[in-house]
Amino acid sequence: MSEKLYNEYQRRFQQIADLKNASNVLQWDQETYLPQKGQTRRAQQISTLTEHAHRLFTDPSNYKLLNDLLDSNLSPHQKKNVELSLIDYNREIKLTPEFVNKMSNTVNKSFYAWIDARKQNSFSVFETPLDTLIQLKKEEAEQLGYEQHPYNALMNDYDRNLTVSTVDKVFENLKPKLDAILQIVMAQPKPETSFLYGHFPQDKQWDFGMELLKKMGFDFSAGRQDISEHPFTTAFNSSDVRLTTRIDENDFSNMTWSCIHEGGHGLYEQNLPDEEYGLPLGESCSLSIHESQSRIWENNIGRGRAYWKHHFPIVKNYFPEQLKNVDEEQFYKAINYVHPSFIRTEADELTYHFHVMIRYEIEKQLIAGKIKTKDIPEYWNVLYKEYLGIKVTDDVTGCLQDVHWSHGSFGYFATYSLGSLYAAQFYNSIQKSNPDLENQIAAGNFSIISGWMNQQIYKHGRFFSSEELCLNCTGETLNPNHFLKYLEGKFIV
Amino acid sequence: MSEKLYNEYQRRFQQIADLKNASNVLQWDQETYLPQKGQTRRAQQISTLTEHAHRLFTDPSNYKLLNDLLDSNLSPHQKKNVELSLIDYNREIKLTPEFVNKMSNTVNKSFYAWIDARKQNSFSVFETPLDTLIQLKKEEAEQLGYEQHPYNALMNDYDRNLTVSTVDKVFENLKPKLDAILQIVMAQPKPETSFLYGHFPQDKQWDFGMELLKKMGFDFSAGRQDISEHPFTTAFNSSDVRLTTRIDENDFSNMTWSCIHEGGHGLYEQNLPDEEYGLPLGESCSLSIHESQSRIWENNIGRGRAYWKHHFPIVKNYFPEQLKNVDEEQFYKAINYVHPSFIRTEADELTYHFHVMIRYEIEKQLIAGKIKTKDIPEYWNVLYKEYLGIKVTDDVTGCLQDVHWSHGSFGYFATYSLGSLYAAQFYNSIQKSNPDLENQIAAGNFSIISGWMNQQIYKHGRFFSSEELCLNCTGETLNPNHFLKYLEGKFIV
Repeated sequence: MSEKLYNEYQRRFQQIADLKNASNVLQWDQETYLPQKGQTRRAQQISTLTEHAHRLFTDPSNYKLLNDLLDSNLSPHQKKNVELSLIDYNREIKLTPEFVNKMSNTVNKSFYAWIDARKQNSFSVFETPLDTLIQLKKEEAEQLGYEQHPYNALMNDYDRNLTVSTVDKVFENLKPKLDAILQIVMAQPKPETSFLYGHFPQDKQWDFGMELLKKMGFDFSAGRQDISEHPFTTAFNSSDVRLTTRIDENDFSNMTWSCIHEGGHGLYEQNLPDEEYGLPLGESCSLSIHESQSRIWENNIGRGRAYWKHHFPIVKNYFPEQLKNVDEEQFYKAINYVHPSFIRTEADELTYHFHVMIRYEIEKQLIAGKIKTKDIPEYWNVLYKEYLGIKVTDDVTGCLQDVHWSHGSFGYFATYSLGSLYAAQFYNSIQKSNPDLENQIAAGNFSIISGWMNQQIYKHGRFFSSEELCLNCTGETLNPNHFLKYLEGKFIV
Repeated sequence: MSEKLYNEYQRRFQQIADLKNASNVLQWDQETYLPQKGQTRRAQQISTLTEHAHRLFTDPSNYKLLNDLLDSNLSPHQKKNVELSLIDYNREIKLTPEFVNKMSNTVNKSFYAWIDARKQNSFSVFETPLDTLIQLKKEEAEQLGYEQHPYNALMNDYDRNLTVSTVDKVFENLKPKLDAILQIVMAQPKPETSFLYGHFPQDKQWDFGMELLKKMGFDFSAGRQDISEHPFTTAFNSSDVRLTTRIDENDFSNMTWSCIHEGGHGLYEQNLPDEEYGLPLGESCSLSIHESQSRIWENNIGRGRAYWKHHFPIVKNYFPEQLKNVDEEQFYKAINYVHPSFIRTEADELTYHFHVMIRYEIEKQLIAGKIKTKDIPEYWNVLYKEYLGIKVTDDVTGCLQDVHWSHGSFGYFATYSLGSLYAAQFYNSIQKSNPDLENQIAAGNFSIISGWMNQQIYKHGRFFSSEELCLNCTGETLNPNHFLKYLEGKFIV
């Protein structure tokens, strides 16, 4: 009996996943190949899919089915799936299909307004659609319910137990320590970096990026890479994972670390258990853990000496002229140049967190109604002066730089910093149990990483919360000291 | 009241269209960019979308809504929409959601079996999945119901009034006349064609094809072209029309006329009335009329002297070496070389119809249960000997050449021939009312064509049946003599 019920549960939730993944395909296409005039109907198509997935998911018969299952004889894995589905159900049921459809449509309008605003380098073009979206997000927080802070309701969408009080505490602890390290690093000699801004032809960069991904272990028979304006990773199932990148011919770093970053996300998605497709255990743990996967590859591995021991001859091979007079040590220093800058995605791994803190602060205040949408640019620029000591002079370089708000992704940013903290903690654990790690990486062999990730993270899907997972695989809960120690070891010379 | 009802009708049917179009996006992606391991889940996702679109469409409340609308005060256009939706409803209601899902899954398996069978050049690899599909198609015909011949039920899916007795009559009339023309043409001197089989680099062909499409008036801000193994056109709405092509570096003709053919389909889709999105009047008239659009561009225009008066200097510019010693007249003769051959899509416009007649004959007998799936290769080869006088020696060159059966598209082929007949009749009408037509084409100006198509065909959507449309825009019902006269005038020198 319980087997029959469980099969029915699988069948229904896989169908819901099919609709959600179809919507993901349409969104991927929207950012890669959609012709310009197709935008309006595409927005409508995505909204319809979103609404129908929501309708199917929140059907009252699912509530009965999930509760019947909890009363029946399930394996621990089955039970966990059902419990998590019930958590999701109880969250989603609070939103009406009409609200979900409206949100989807509003997001779409706001996305294109953001594109326009960037073209015109003017926040005012984005302001009204963004404000509509922010009001909807506040409404969403109210409908979902929360304790203490409305922003908690939104952050929970990305990491289920994350709260303002946790993140505030982490950032309050982190900020002065990062400041202190930055002071020291800024007093050290500035490396030569001009050779990273020569001319790096599009096709050569593309081929180089593809080689990096292959070496990381990204399986191109179960995924692909395309070009989009804003790099992202999406998956329609673990055998179909799509990465995107962008190429700036005058900047070697932009594509390279975006590629490695998305590759880290991609490896996580490709190694989630396919047999759990459509069920919680087939999903990633949380956005924080997802970001740990991209950040560990981007920084702990991808900006490390060992990584470039292997890859420096390769990059020289792709760009012999551009790197003619550059040796491995100069290259390593250049790609690890720490300095305050304007663009988050191009920031070094230390100042990066100031960028995140600023967005976190603004979102928190917006959702709490303490600042108004129209005040974003001013608030942004004040915070950049305060946190990074730099003066933002225009909106594209300032508050229009990230896609997230236009997507309605409020509550996301903190996971980038948490991801970096987890990444440092994980890397430390891997290294402790594998003293040969950096030799292997230097030989271009990443099997220690992939083996550890598979065992400790990938295969568990959503079984554990971020905190549980961290405790299981490192022996302690989140401890930012690993990250700080890593920074000190790397940057204070 | 009727306005409110009609708005509700629009809302519901647009949502159904959104689901169907989402499925079309997933299918487009499947044939262009899907990584190999993603096939299984993708099949499932498409089946789910198909099933849900069917469920939404056949909801009993739609029956009531449509009938209430028919009793209310509607404009003629609104009334036609509702009437056609009711026809569609009464057809689809005969199939259960489970049957629709099963069909979608079976088609998918059969598609990949066909790909494998082609790789192995062996029909036997395809036989069992194809047979399963054929049994399902027979079941579908029974469920849909028919008069006289079960194949009628399937042909109606592509052209709503098409019957075996009509097509039989057309083909019985056509075949001996085509035979007679072919006899005469075959006795004429054979043109030199070897220069069409030089080396035509992929990127040059691609650029050339894109230029042809732009000149035809295909709007690349409302559509795109990609590469797929089997060229096709699909549309997700009139502002997002996707063409695909394939490129054989050793064959100039393959890409060129496939491109023009799909371009003709694409122009029809781009010019359907967007305000009728999701409703019958936003759809094409029938597959026969759709094929008239691709065939008129491919042949009456695209293999004509006037067309190449303008395009010959252009093609010379793309392929100066390959066409070094070729003049316009030699080129024209080469691209119009009439001779029996094995591959339908590469056939000249005369012998093409024997290819169609063979498939039609086989399908008709399969659906009537008069021949067995396993006998297809033998029957195919016998008919090729009989109709075209050539001996098929392997399955890829024989019965595995077309994708249609693997897609479950039984009942489609006759529309290719009808499309050619309509095309000749339309071209004749355009020419009669525009004596300057060929001068304009020779100047690279296609506005006469697009103006006529817009007025006579595009803007009407599904308002008229194929027969009505033909009568309206040519003053007579389908008359194959226009096609025969066209062939005689062109090929008998």
